[in-house]
Amino acid sequence: MMIMDGKKIAREKFSELEEKMKERVNPLSLAVVCVGKDPVSSVYVGKKEKELSKRGVVVSVYNYKKDIQEKRLKEEVRSLKENGIIVQLPLPESLQTREVLDSIKKEKDVDLLSSVSCGEFYTGTAKTTPPVVGAVSTLLEEYKVECKGKNVVLIGGGALVGKPLAIHFIKEEATVTVVNRYTKNLKLFTREADILVSGAGKPGLIRGDMVKEGSTVIDAGTSSSSGELKGDVDADSLKDKPSLFSPVPGGVGPLTVYHLANNLRLLENDNR
Amino acid sequence: MMIMDGKKIAREKFSELEEKMKERVNPLSLAVVCVGKDPVSSVYVGKKEKELSKRGVVVSVYNYKKDIQEKRLKEEVRSLKENGIIVQLPLPESLQTREVLDSIKKEKDVDLLSSVSCGEFYTGTAKTTPPVVGAVSTLLEEYKVECKGKNVVLIGGGALVGKPLAIHFIKEEATVTVVNRYTKNLKLFTREADILVSGAGKPGLIRGDMVKEGSTVIDAGTSSSSGELKGDVDADSLKDKPSLFSPVPGGVGPLTVYHLANNLRLLENDNR
Repeated sequence: MMIMDGKKIAREKFSELEEKMKERVNPLSLAVVCVGKDPVSSVYVGKKEKELSKRGVVVSVYNYKKDIQEKRLKEEVRSLKENGIIVQLPLPESLQTREVLDSIKKEKDVDLLSSVSCGEFYTGTAKTTPPVVGAVSTLLEEYKVECKGKNVVLIGGGALVGKPLAIHFIKEEATVTVVNRYTKNLKLFTREADILVSGAGKPGLIRGDMVKEGSTVIDAGTSSSSGELKGDVDADSLKDKPSLFSPVPGGVGPLTVYHLANNLRLLENDNR
Repeated sequence: MMIMDGKKIAREKFSELEEKMKERVNPLSLAVVCVGKDPVSSVYVGKKEKELSKRGVVVSVYNYKKDIQEKRLKEEVRSLKENGIIVQLPLPESLQTREVLDSIKKEKDVDLLSSVSCGEFYTGTAKTTPPVVGAVSTLLEEYKVECKGKNVVLIGGGALVGKPLAIHFIKEEATVTVVNRYTKNLKLFTREADILVSGAGKPGLIRGDMVKEGSTVIDAGTSSSSGELKGDVDADSLKDKPSLFSPVPGGVGPLTVYHLANNLRLLENDNR
């Protein structure tokens, strides 16, 4: 079993990106909007800040209290002057996530989460890619895994992982299955997957006996246990069953951050 | 096997709609934009015109030659004054379909095919529904077929049927598989489907031996053979295997036209 080294690929991609950005006079800037405290979010915000700052992106983290009024938060988001804006999810339940995301202007929406950006991604007119989609497809490209005609199984149909990846793999002409917590006999599906991407956020959900021999397993799960990031896959149980495995941490995560930076650059070029 | 009578349900739904529209002073109007000639399109345009006119919608069909310039066509679409606009697909290959569809203003986009409308549908903020999605979900509702946790298989991942239905069924928390022409051993998938929706446009593609006992089979295929509309399902071979079957013609089609009219009304209410 070969480990898909997202960290190393991200490093190489970032070097290329730094080359492209050398000609810039002003550094790119990114606003990260956080509301309340969420343990997983804190880890991810920290990672983004560290990795992007290292590459010369000016990252400003805006922390709001969890009882902020929705109207006020939307105004804040609309008034941000940075090149790109991230609203860190999940938001507190008192806020309508969709309303807040839709207050991000398309030309600053590096995460592609506003309805306008989602629509352009859905119809194939976006110049950028949802970061997780970018990360997964970069991993597959780098390890020369073809998608067309392959059996792809996505664990979870959420807005950040399963839903955009479903659209991506439909476009790539794979056979795509999205399973969820109500799926009876999960194993029946996962065992047939040439490419398995898990974004459930449930540590230990995917074990070796659920995986196809010779397949590609990409862990895109995000949860935390005592401050440590956890994926969905029980890595020890995989043995040598899949040919390729992208673990958490070190797989999808670093490439997601790279694609954020790349989107920032693409959007900014667009606006010049 | 019970036949899902889309025609009858559409008639009932249309009656309810006519009640709601009684208070109107001016009739609703719909523009149908056709470029060149396509045999399947002609049949569908005819059906829409007939059914909607009967219900008091003023339908204007605009026919353009197949060598019309894209820029000109987009201007025409933008200038249309009707309450709703349909651009009949497929367009000739010389035109970029996406560009033309994106020239439909959101408030007139009864088919939900522009990037903006697709985005609102994708994120769940649209007040309307893509007509085929509306038709399939009305059929399932009327025959009390639950989706959550069910195994749904969609034949084809196209922009009109498979892709929007994938998003719909993911939202409904079904287990969703989208297969296509590159899927090896189609039967393996279709035989496990509690709900099978076919939108491939290949007459005879789905036969009885590919279908699960007691399932729901919805034919949303559209092709024509010597002027006659054909679905994807070889109805005779089904015998009594599925419990419910929605055939072509008489199933999805009439309800698609109803949902067009309903979208027209919803959009117009929005703009008053």
